[in-house]
Formats: sequence, structure tokens, C-alpha cells
Amino acid sequence: MIDKERIAEAYQRIQDEICAALETLDGKAKFKEEVWEREGGGGGRTRVIQGGDVLEKGGVNFSAVHGQLPEIVKKSFGVDEDEFFATGVSIVLHPHNPHVPIIHMNIRYFELNEQIRWFGGGIDLTPHYVVDEDARYFHTALKAVCDRHHSDFYPDFKAWADRYFFIKHRNETRGIGGVFYDKLTPEKTGLSEEQLFDFSCDLGRTFAPVYCELANRRRHQPFSAKEKEWQLLRRGRYVEFNLVYDAGTKFGLETNGRIESILMSLPTQASWLYDFKPAPNSEEQKTLDLLKKGIEWA
Amino acid sequence: MIDKERIAEAYQRIQDEICAALETLDGKAKFKEEVWEREGGGGGRTRVIQGGDVLEKGGVNFSAVHGQLPEIVKKSFGVDEDEFFATGVSIVLHPHNPHVPIIHMNIRYFELNEQIRWFGGGIDLTPHYVVDEDARYFHTALKAVCDRHHSDFYPDFKAWADRYFFIKHRNETRGIGGVFYDKLTPEKTGLSEEQLFDFSCDLGRTFAPVYCELANRRRHQPFSAKEKEWQLLRRGRYVEFNLVYDAGTKFGLETNGRIESILMSLPTQASWLYDFKPAPNSEEQKTLDLLKKGIEWA
Repeated sequence: MIDKERIAEAYQRIQDEICAALETLDGKAKFKEEVWEREGGGGGRTRVIQGGDVLEKGGVNFSAVHGQLPEIVKKSFGVDEDEFFATGVSIVLHPHNPHVPIIHMNIRYFELNEQIRWFGGGIDLTPHYVVDEDARYFHTALKAVCDRHHSDFYPDFKAWADRYFFIKHRNETRGIGGVFYDKLTPEKTGLSEEQLFDFSCDLGRTFAPVYCELANRRRHQPFSAKEKEWQLLRRGRYVEFNLVYDAGTKFGLETNGRIESILMSLPTQASWLYDFKPAPNSEEQKTLDLLKKGIEWA
Repeated sequence: MIDKERIAEAYQRIQDEICAALETLDGKAKFKEEVWEREGGGGGRTRVIQGGDVLEKGGVNFSAVHGQLPEIVKKSFGVDEDEFFATGVSIVLHPHNPHVPIIHMNIRYFELNEQIRWFGGGIDLTPHYVVDEDARYFHTALKAVCDRHHSDFYPDFKAWADRYFFIKHRNETRGIGGVFYDKLTPEKTGLSEEQLFDFSCDLGRTFAPVYCELANRRRHQPFSAKEKEWQLLRRGRYVEFNLVYDAGTKFGLETNGRIESILMSLPTQASWLYDFKPAPNSEEQKTLDLLKKGIEWA
């Protein structure tokens, strides 16, 4: 049986590595850290970057919390066990330049009464403008890391991301997806816990080089006021997904989590216009047309 | 038994009156109307105003829909009946000037199998900066209209608004409240259906004069960039309430309602800053200190 402290320590190192890589990428802003403790047990390190050269606002959060599982969560999980432990790293980055995509990553490990032991996580990309070669690069990189661990992982988790990162009331995906997985166990995958842990860390370590590459490709690309306006509208959709559907956000709000850490995923500015429709054949419309499930990018 | 068509027609007239009053108030922008039909039965008139002198964005929507109640709603209501009729007027106004408050109004009538017949609604005010005399004026006007119909209405519905317009995860009220009521029947109130209908219309007709008075008091008040920033942060909270808690929004999203009509309540621009805290004793902090339940304004 894998030691949960070892997982938490590995995740903390991944948080450190990612923050260092993102500060190098940005070149201007630095992360500010807040260390916090949770009343019921455990705590975390919230790290937020704001007003950078590349990153307008972003958070790279680590937490390792434990205690009694709230009734509402027990019900939604359909379990009777109530001593939980959860550790993970969560990231959302909102860049300044509309040609640089929003990105989200999460790796997490969850334990109930030391009997249930689940790995979950994922990485997904939300370009304001979908660029074919960037989308292919992103999915190919995710496929490579998945393939190193299990040949089913990329196809399964890619489809899972398409289903999960879906804004039902808009009938559009949040972005171009990526991978998403939850409640992975040795029974379900044929991999040992050690191997699932390895996969989780490997995915976490894929984040920084992939996002830095994508950001460096577009960070100096000029943009118009119209493109900036479109970025704010897309961020509005991001807010809709996170507040209406995101399981992590809901869990946090319902269990009285640390609100500022949970809602660091929201952008500095977002916008809504009544019934806005991009011009036919515009770059904005082309992006909308690609916000659907089942596109094979890799 | 009251005729539901009569209620729908009265609500349409109230929509007309309110739109006319708000166009006069604004002096620049006009409402654009979209008439829509619902696949399952009925339809509505969505009226949106954008880019006005006073009103940055607002919607005054009427709808009268009927059909089969979705399973998920039957469950949440705890009923077996499934032929529903619902009509109402819904308003949200976001002004330009941070010294002019956001306002929301709803009056509605709901019928199930012609046996259950409920009136619901309310008006609540969300000032970016709470001004004591304006808050008192607003609540006093609501108390006056309630008192004309039932001596319990204002105290009961004021407390109900405090409970309902509450952002639990922030531990703050959305604004300074107002009145909120739901599922009113003759059995619960001692008033006839005709009297409940009268109350509903009377409340609807209170909206325009009260908001015009409040807006005219502050529309020319100068504001700083800092005050505008604060307005966008308060709008962020408004978005949080509407997407996470608002029953009407949830109902609309879950029942595949007309998305652009439902989400017209979201502001043109909103903002989130990580862990923003106003300076001690600032006007912003004074407003935050008043965003709590149980303040008696009338």
C-alpha cells in the first residue's frame, strides 16, 4: 500500500517545479504564496501570480487535507466511510494575450478510511482562438505521456475530457479538451498503485513544458481590441463552466473550502453580451465551430 | 378560480409599462425585443437594453410557458403532477455608474394540473456602495406596497429575501435585500387568489418609480477608476450568486430554457481579483460591513 505522505510530498515538488517554470516563462511577475491550515485537518499552499508579462492571473495550488467527510459528499459518492484524505495540485492560468490559451491542470489522490484509494486529474486547454497546429501539439504531448503508461489511457481520458469539460446549456465544449480521469484504481486499470502514482506525477511534469511551449509561440503576437473583447467573452464561458459544472469548485463551495483558493480559477475580467454572434467565417466563428466533442487532434 | 390568461396579460402590460419608464429614465438607449416560442409550449418576449446613458445592460423579460414538467423539477418540488403553466416578468439592470445600484425584480405565477396555484416574486437591490438614505427609501417603498395587502408581508418577505439573496460561500448578502416570496396561496395567507394577484401586480408597478428615483439621485455623480474597479468586483459577486444559487437560473439551465434570456442577468463586464480586501474604513469596506442579514432599513 502506497504511503499517502509520499504522494503529498511528490505533489509539493511538482508544484515547486511548475511555479519555477512559469516564473521563468513570464519573466516579470512572481508567485505570492499563502500557507493555510484547514480547521478540520491539513492545509495547503496557495500560489497566485497576477499582472505578469504573459500571465494576467493564475494560481498553482497545493493542498493536503484530511478529516471527516461531510454528509453531502458521502451521499454524492454513495459511501459510508467518513475518514478522508485528499491531496492534489490545481492550476488555472489566464494569459493577457488572446492568442495564448487558458489552461487547467489537476492531479489528485483521494483516500477514504484507508480502503478506497483513488487517483484523478487531467489537463485541458481553452484557446480563445483555436490554432490547428497548437491543438495538435497539445494533444500529441498528452497522448505521449499517457501512452507511456497504458495504451487505453489517451483514448479513454480524451473522451472523458470531452464529456466533462462541456457547457451543457451552451451546447459547446469549454475548449479543445485534453485528458480527464477520476477514481483510477489497480482493479480498473491493471496497473499497481505505484504505477498509477507514477502516471499522475508524469502528467504533472508534462504541464510546464507543454504550456511554456504554447505560450512562447503566441505571447508576442499582436492583437486587436476586437480580439481582446472576444477573449473576455470566452472567459465569461469559463466562469459559467466553473461555477455551474466544475466538480472541484462545487465540492469546495459545499464543503466550506478556502474560497479564495477555489475561486482563483476565475479571470481578472470577463464579459457577457446579450446574444453575441460572431460574423460568419470569422476567426471567432471558426473557433466556435471547433468547440465540440469527438475531434481527434492527436 | 382565477384565469391564468388574465394573469399573463396583466404581466405583459406591466412589462410594457416598465420598459417605457426605463427608456424615459435612460434617455438614450431603447429596448430591443425578441419574441420567442418554446418547443414544449408557450413563449416569451425578451427585451434587452444595452449601452444606455444610465443602463449599461439590462433585461425586462416576459414569458408564459406551459407543457410537461421535467422529471428533475417534479422531484425537486416533490410533486406528481406534471402539466404546468408558468408566467412572469423578470428584470435585472446593471447601470454604468457605480453609484447607481443593480436591481432585480421578478413576479411570477405557477400552476400544476390546474390544482396547485402559486404566486412568487420579489424585488432586491444591490448597491455597489450602500447609501443609507437610499437603502431606507427602497425598503420603505417596499414596506408601503406590502402593508397595503397584508401586515405580515413586509416583515416575512424581507426576512425571506435576506435568507434567499445570500452568497453562502462568501458569507455575505448579495446586496441590501428587499422582499422575496414564493408559493403563496390563499390557504397560507388568508387572501383570495384575486388579492394575491393584486399584490403581485402592485409590486410589479412599484418597480419602475422606485428604481427611477434611485437612479436619478446618483446618475450624474462623478466616479473614480477605483470606484469603477469596485463595481466590477461587486458584479463578480452578482455572477457568483446567479450561477451558483439563483433558483430561476438553475431551473432555466436544467430545463433547457432560452439561455440568452436566462443569462441576460449577467453584466457586460465583471472582475475577480485574488483575495481583494478594501482598505479599513474605506467606503468599500463600509459597504461590505452592511452586506449581512437582519438590518432593518424601513
